[in-house]
Amino acid sequence: MAVYTEVSDEDLDRFVALYDIGRVRSCKGIAEGVENSNYLLQTEAGRYILTLYEKRVDPNDLPFFIGLMDHLASRGLGCPLPVRARSGAALGELAGRPAAIVTFLDGQWVRRPTARHCGLLGEALARMHLAGRDFAVRRPNALSMPSWRPLWERSRARAHEVAPELSADVEDELKVLEASWPREGALPWGVIHADLFPDNVFFLGDRLSGLIDFYFACDDMLAYDVAVCLNSWCFEPDLSFDFTKGRAFLAAYESVRRLEPAEVEALPLLASGSALRFLLTRLYDWLNVPPGALVKPKDPLEYHRKLRFHRSISGAAAYGLDPR
Amino acid sequence: MAVYTEVSDEDLDRFVALYDIGRVRSCKGIAEGVENSNYLLQTEAGRYILTLYEKRVDPNDLPFFIGLMDHLASRGLGCPLPVRARSGAALGELAGRPAAIVTFLDGQWVRRPTARHCGLLGEALARMHLAGRDFAVRRPNALSMPSWRPLWERSRARAHEVAPELSADVEDELKVLEASWPREGALPWGVIHADLFPDNVFFLGDRLSGLIDFYFACDDMLAYDVAVCLNSWCFEPDLSFDFTKGRAFLAAYESVRRLEPAEVEALPLLASGSALRFLLTRLYDWLNVPPGALVKPKDPLEYHRKLRFHRSISGAAAYGLDPR
Repeated sequence: MAVYTEVSDEDLDRFVALYDIGRVRSCKGIAEGVENSNYLLQTEAGRYILTLYEKRVDPNDLPFFIGLMDHLASRGLGCPLPVRARSGAALGELAGRPAAIVTFLDGQWVRRPTARHCGLLGEALARMHLAGRDFAVRRPNALSMPSWRPLWERSRARAHEVAPELSADVEDELKVLEASWPREGALPWGVIHADLFPDNVFFLGDRLSGLIDFYFACDDMLAYDVAVCLNSWCFEPDLSFDFTKGRAFLAAYESVRRLEPAEVEALPLLASGSALRFLLTRLYDWLNVPPGALVKPKDPLEYHRKLRFHRSISGAAAYGLDPR
Repeated sequence: MAVYTEVSDEDLDRFVALYDIGRVRSCKGIAEGVENSNYLLQTEAGRYILTLYEKRVDPNDLPFFIGLMDHLASRGLGCPLPVRARSGAALGELAGRPAAIVTFLDGQWVRRPTARHCGLLGEALARMHLAGRDFAVRRPNALSMPSWRPLWERSRARAHEVAPELSADVEDELKVLEASWPREGALPWGVIHADLFPDNVFFLGDRLSGLIDFYFACDDMLAYDVAVCLNSWCFEPDLSFDFTKGRAFLAAYESVRRLEPAEVEALPLLASGSALRFLLTRLYDWLNVPPGALVKPKDPLEYHRKLRFHRSISGAAAYGLDPR
């Protein structure tokens, strides 16, 4: 749940007056987004999301995030479109924080995705990858492979509190990944979402209405995004891999952008890396949750189980990828 | 900030299908309401608030709350109107909790009310008191005078942690209030809001658009509601009483419903009682906040200061009440 910055009605009215969206009719803080304060803003012109960027977001990254949404939306991808003030700026300041207004995206995220949802996701992800090809701004992936060992060092001493076998497995996996992680340029690169979990994908009736929360987006291997989605969409609640969902997701992705042989070969490795990345951030949060906090940290062991699956398979066919 | 019950998209779709409001377009948990989970629900027919009643609300009280909003809205008072399902029921069940859908009220609450806002408030409060006169359901005030000593007993042993002089002042005040609190029938009774703080009153442009959060509403002395508003609207940030705001509030109230002489006489006593009531609930919350909780408890000493003001004055003229 988000931390909320209190915005006075006077400050809000003044801020909104810089835009051509009419006067404020209502503005409510919403319980979405962990990094920022988000408000559902209704004006005379329609519904918007107002975001105040809190401390965990680097202000230097904001032009990338805002520019990316602008770029993707202009290419027809369903995603929030940053609204520009009359000055032309899409980024302003409100209550002492960087702030932006984006269009509101109808839809709900699905708590229990089906194979149909996974198919719609695959198509949208591939379309996003294609639409991002001519986006000029660059942002390295701050949570890519080189960051994992330093992240692990911050939790290692207490990892046994979570599970006795965790330390040995993470150490082994780090060695494997450091030895064999693809070099930049070895696989197709581009803009990736990097956090496309079900709560960041909206559906409306039978269609996917859009993607949100681009605040981990960066430049990296496109297939790494595919691996993130395999982890976050294609496992069952009992943490067994759902071959039907994997197949639906990958076939739909490939109907828009076919994976290259090197990407297919690397997929289990990328999926292991992605599982380790979420394991490590969740482990850190799990060990450092303030006592009595209202936010229940997510279970790191979920991703330990998924990691073990990726290590156990012999190739990407186990995900349901069509034979070449 | 509210505790949120997670509602699955399937459960929500099924629930909304019981109403004639079209299909769900979006549904977002909002950071308002401490007792319940509130969602801003957009359907094909419009915007609504969906409330899930959490444990702190007694289900037996729900027909009173829902019925009261229905009653007041039907008499033209700006307040959320409960939406009935096709079955006729205004109260259903969702995610294992009692749940209701009410119409959405445009507007924002004001962080720094001016005398103009206090005037609009006074008029709306008096109109609510008149509109409630023929509401048939009854609900005693669970936080009225007889509840204060038991509440105090739960904090007394640790009250010195907050301020050394607090104990003696509360003990003195309890004795005074127990000896002189008006008997039922001595002053005009009816439905009161009982918690009409600025965050429960919405303004839109130049007008007051409505009142929300009737979950402390009950039967009690109408003038007690006036006293609650004097406490919550008419003090400055430095906790001095703002005579201009008090006069604007009371004159506007009396332009709709004139206070009887007995109410005028009792007003300082009722204001002391109201200040003590909020002092005691805040004191309890202050002493019992879970460590690390995200919700910062409200300062009980604010109401200690206000209580001292009410004890210091010689009559209701000090609030800005017009001379009789």
